[in-house]
Amino acid sequence: MGLYHEILEQPNVLGGILKNREQVEGVCAQLGRRRFEFVMIAARGSSDHAALYAKYLLGMVNRLPVALAAPSLFTFYESPPRLANALVIGISQSGASEDIVSVLRSARQQGAATLAITNHAASALGETAEWVLDVRAGEERAIAASKTYTATLLTVALLSAGLAQDAARFAELERLPELVSRMLEEDLRVQRMVERYRYMAQCIVLGRGFNYTTAFEWSLKLKELAYVAAEPYSSADFQHGPIALVENGFPVLAALPSGRVSDEMVALVRRLVVERQAELVAISDVQGALELARSPIPLPAGIPEWISPMVCVIPAQLFCYHITRAKGLDPEHPRGLAKVTLTR
Amino acid sequence: MGLYHEILEQPNVLGGILKNREQVEGVCAQLGRRRFEFVMIAARGSSDHAALYAKYLLGMVNRLPVALAAPSLFTFYESPPRLANALVIGISQSGASEDIVSVLRSARQQGAATLAITNHAASALGETAEWVLDVRAGEERAIAASKTYTATLLTVALLSAGLAQDAARFAELERLPELVSRMLEEDLRVQRMVERYRYMAQCIVLGRGFNYTTAFEWSLKLKELAYVAAEPYSSADFQHGPIALVENGFPVLAALPSGRVSDEMVALVRRLVVERQAELVAISDVQGALELARSPIPLPAGIPEWISPMVCVIPAQLFCYHITRAKGLDPEHPRGLAKVTLTR
Repeated sequence: MGLYHEILEQPNVLGGILKNREQVEGVCAQLGRRRFEFVMIAARGSSDHAALYAKYLLGMVNRLPVALAAPSLFTFYESPPRLANALVIGISQSGASEDIVSVLRSARQQGAATLAITNHAASALGETAEWVLDVRAGEERAIAASKTYTATLLTVALLSAGLAQDAARFAELERLPELVSRMLEEDLRVQRMVERYRYMAQCIVLGRGFNYTTAFEWSLKLKELAYVAAEPYSSADFQHGPIALVENGFPVLAALPSGRVSDEMVALVRRLVVERQAELVAISDVQGALELARSPIPLPAGIPEWISPMVCVIPAQLFCYHITRAKGLDPEHPRGLAKVTLTR
Repeated sequence: MGLYHEILEQPNVLGGILKNREQVEGVCAQLGRRRFEFVMIAARGSSDHAALYAKYLLGMVNRLPVALAAPSLFTFYESPPRLANALVIGISQSGASEDIVSVLRSARQQGAATLAITNHAASALGETAEWVLDVRAGEERAIAASKTYTATLLTVALLSAGLAQDAARFAELERLPELVSRMLEEDLRVQRMVERYRYMAQCIVLGRGFNYTTAFEWSLKLKELAYVAAEPYSSADFQHGPIALVENGFPVLAALPSGRVSDEMVALVRRLVVERQAELVAISDVQGALELARSPIPLPAGIPEWISPMVCVIPAQLFCYHITRAKGLDPEHPRGLAKVTLTR
């Protein structure tokens, strides 16, 4: 019982969420009667990466502008922005983060529509928001989030499809548990692969568009479990300065499933490998990307791009778990971390 | 002529902008007649850090919710969010970035109020936006931004004060050139200090609230000039996982001027130094923070917190310039970078 078990549990967890999707449809029906001009999301850690997914998905599918909250404006500075015409979403696995609760409390006082997305509906966050979506991941014992991350992404995906009343998207989501199961079959390949990176001290992790969140989640897991200084970038931001870091052998990890941004992502990793002699670990179904990689992790073909973050993160989780073990570290007890982090 | 010269030029550049503040007041008078519910800002690199400053300043002083744009929604995904009730700001030193121009073009077509903040008013960005604020930094020759960064921050500060019609804030800004001059007097201290970090391969850079932008700018300069894998964090986000990285001797750089968030920042760096044996480089006027630091960089007392990012970044720029020289690298020719980066 712990991180590895929770990683393997994900097809079941995601399947259970899909079976109970009327929870989300009920909230969407009520939200559909509220008027809001924009969305603000408050979250920390892996939940903040789910917020990043929501920024792209609600932006693209629902045409909603999404702002990520600066909680300190609500707590330390005590001068929150005007939110009367907003939908304000708080995302927190535990529902206990004081700063996230502060944002929702202010938003509700201001008359905003407020929604909590949490694995603990009976929490301060759940009690503060007008509506609650329980992500129903079951208890997560490991300090590092795995199943609560994918469960939160799926809840966001259902919220987007529900607000759009888009039956085709609901149908596409039904494939998710099976796609995640197929990725878990790569476990042994990933376990063998990580040996090569036992002494990697730093790396960069690339993703763009929908998979910008995958770059963040992969990086955070590498830092908190394996103590690798991994920094996430979009392919665009990376070219505005940080690309200078890359020298012969510099490790570049990338999630680049086929989709609208994959040509640009492949062009960048090609440049890094061919011109700068970077070493590439690639999660992809694009042949050109897999061929450039010293360590390729193939994805099944035909995954809809908007769903791909929930599939791509699976080998990233396995990568982080196994490299932590390969370094002789304990994935259940990362240095200086607790399951619930209380910040203002 | 180059980076060092441009760093030293900043008091004059900032003084010149303050003398011409009627440009900003004119735009503010017109913007004041437009109705908008929220602000969206599109930017890359150092300009994106100025956007982060705007997120806090416009949020706190002007109570405006600020979203940072995801340009790929406008370019690759061709499905931009609804912006008719927004003020959309594009920030770009060159005004040439295609992705930033795409955001402004879509916003203007949708009927949003559009504003360009740029050092090249006669650029694609300047021509696309309804209003233009010329940051008037003069030509910047170095690839790494210095004076265009502080000039952009000051333009954002004037915009905020102008929208709030706040004479007291204008008066506080008048002190800025002298404060920057005083920070430049720390040049020799910083030059001696960086010797110790000649072989630093990675570090983290902390800032919060208004100085979250300082953490990003300091990190980016370290990466692009000195090839140090430096990752920026807010003190809150850092505790949600990445803190696991810190072991004996791990370098922590922090900008923590006194203000609303300084007690929390000092408590975190104390914990890192005392419990985790981190090594601290601190830019601060808080005695407790300077005493914890192996390398303290004292700030003048009494800097208003909202202005402090334009002062704190000066020793950070000097730190990056001198460490680059100490490593035998050329600060004018960072590996693989050009002055104008064109991304979609």
